[in-house]
Amino acid sequence: MDKLDQLRQWTQKQHLDVTYVSDPKNIEYYTGFGSDPLERTLGLFVFADADPFIFAPALEVESIKGLNWPYDVYGYLDHQEPYALISDYIKQRVKNPLKWAIEKPQLQVHRYEALIQNFPEASFDVNATDFIEHQRLYKSAAEIDLMMAAGAEADEAFRTAFKAISKDRTEQQIVAEIEYHMMKQGVMHMSFDTIVQSGANAANPHGAALPDKMTPNALVLFDLGTVHQGYNSDASRTVAFGKIDAKSKEIYDVCLEAQLTAMDAAKPGITAAELDNVARSIITKAGYGEYFNHRLGHGIGMTDHEYPSIMAGNDLVIEPGMCFSIEPGIYIPGVAGVRIEDCIHVTETGNVPFTKTSKDLLELPIV
Amino acid sequence: MDKLDQLRQWTQKQHLDVTYVSDPKNIEYYTGFGSDPLERTLGLFVFADADPFIFAPALEVESIKGLNWPYDVYGYLDHQEPYALISDYIKQRVKNPLKWAIEKPQLQVHRYEALIQNFPEASFDVNATDFIEHQRLYKSAAEIDLMMAAGAEADEAFRTAFKAISKDRTEQQIVAEIEYHMMKQGVMHMSFDTIVQSGANAANPHGAALPDKMTPNALVLFDLGTVHQGYNSDASRTVAFGKIDAKSKEIYDVCLEAQLTAMDAAKPGITAAELDNVARSIITKAGYGEYFNHRLGHGIGMTDHEYPSIMAGNDLVIEPGMCFSIEPGIYIPGVAGVRIEDCIHVTETGNVPFTKTSKDLLELPIV
Repeated sequence: MDKLDQLRQWTQKQHLDVTYVSDPKNIEYYTGFGSDPLERTLGLFVFADADPFIFAPALEVESIKGLNWPYDVYGYLDHQEPYALISDYIKQRVKNPLKWAIEKPQLQVHRYEALIQNFPEASFDVNATDFIEHQRLYKSAAEIDLMMAAGAEADEAFRTAFKAISKDRTEQQIVAEIEYHMMKQGVMHMSFDTIVQSGANAANPHGAALPDKMTPNALVLFDLGTVHQGYNSDASRTVAFGKIDAKSKEIYDVCLEAQLTAMDAAKPGITAAELDNVARSIITKAGYGEYFNHRLGHGIGMTDHEYPSIMAGNDLVIEPGMCFSIEPGIYIPGVAGVRIEDCIHVTETGNVPFTKTSKDLLELPIV
Repeated sequence: MDKLDQLRQWTQKQHLDVTYVSDPKNIEYYTGFGSDPLERTLGLFVFADADPFIFAPALEVESIKGLNWPYDVYGYLDHQEPYALISDYIKQRVKNPLKWAIEKPQLQVHRYEALIQNFPEASFDVNATDFIEHQRLYKSAAEIDLMMAAGAEADEAFRTAFKAISKDRTEQQIVAEIEYHMMKQGVMHMSFDTIVQSGANAANPHGAALPDKMTPNALVLFDLGTVHQGYNSDASRTVAFGKIDAKSKEIYDVCLEAQLTAMDAAKPGITAAELDNVARSIITKAGYGEYFNHRLGHGIGMTDHEYPSIMAGNDLVIEPGMCFSIEPGIYIPGVAGVRIEDCIHVTETGNVPFTKTSKDLLELPIV
């Protein structure tokens, strides 16, 4: 409950009456209770000088109690009006809560309006997200252990992937082999839809595995990750399936140089923008700048896309404990795509990647 | 583009300047472009008297153009401020847009505040969600065809599931067998995490498959669905693995009677609340009312949980074209759980279920 106590202390220091945590991932971060409430209301309410409570759909109450949550949890049924109940429970703790912090990037307008209706005199100016993201930015040793385990699972997934490549399989069937292998070992969630893209399909940086057979004599891009006890891995490798042409080899080499150089540069003191530029300038100098059309990286932890964002314009100074991806890519429409990605955690002197799969170009025979 | 034209006409009739569609599923409904933008901004802007446009992350622009979207699509890069750009593109169409409709249950407060900042004189009182949900509530013949196909996939998944049950497998390994079988056939997305719960684990109505071996001589609850070309199926079956005791048999029979009676009652003219009560009163009369702690059903279509909500307090009159689940459950903590669920589409005279798997109690031998 250290994390939760930090949020309570912040609530106190900001002279707030209530901090309303509405993002299910943040509720999990503070309480250990992970859930996707869909359209139902799930909230954690934290007070400067009173015990917090969880407000949840009735059918989740038993699960929360089973987690040894030491404070109150209140359930509501589908036909009940959640914000009227929330208002009552809050007023049992703080008679007239005037200063609130809410999660502005997560809270929806209709919930915001329900708050305003129930607390017409209150102000909701403070954005709790800044503090919560700052807290989540620095991973504890326990969190890094879980992410190392998730990284080892991603390495295992790559081994399965490279063995599964065959001219007789579609991209989607290779995804099936990877995910089945992981699931049989109890890895029930991938961080996101496993990506296997071969040939020209790999040029779509947000594409998906297709029901098409693997393109022979072309690059194959894999992007995958697993969830280990609530923490994510995420990594990309691009390999050759058969003989690749000189252009494909060239973009692989440029992308790899950009990735390795950025890996070397990722240490305390550099800014996110500078780190993005380390990789981008190599790709730009080689003439492929326009084909690297996304940021260098994103934070990772309980989600696969969180802070810090490694991109132009972000002057955040990298510090120990931060965890993020380094994933330059070169995508030439209609031709080929390369992405090479590791997620790392920053140490006092440099960084440690969560994934260890070799980045030397792997040339697989056509089988 | 009929659906989009209906939204444009509504925008016109409401004397609105702009309707801002921010829910990615609704953007897919109107444009055919399906995407999870994560924290990035994706929007569809619809005008009473000007062409709509899509605003999207730059890396999605090629995909959108590839869908033959006939109007403008504007991309933005990660370091750009999206709402400043959106404001410019809107003002090219409407000089001073004063009346907006937004999706209040989806739009986040920080985006709402960015709108207010860019359009300080505008009003955002109108909730577009009511109209959009109403539009989505009535499925077209084409949508129902896709949902029938998704239902057939769910039936195939149940066949796989019943074959995979074994005392040597864990609940999670049975999930692995089900999803692998489906994925090999190109079904790349389940509607939600496949649920296999045996014995006392089934008493948790929002639980998950555990890494525990199947409980012999107990009920096993399966809840699963697939996504077929963007449309979902969702169904539950509970079967006996070995010999079950009299109590388990009794709750199965009560749940089945409730489900079948509600299936018969689901036709035009009944209200959602009345339909919930049809099932609930049977379970309550049998003495298990407190163990049925969720609504009878939820709408289904492009998402697995949408309108209509089949629950107490909802006076919506059921009409042809509506699609929803009928899923009574009885969950006795520490003992057993039963849920039996089909999703249906309502016709002029009754309904047609999307899933056909038998609901007679299947008694599987312990293998």
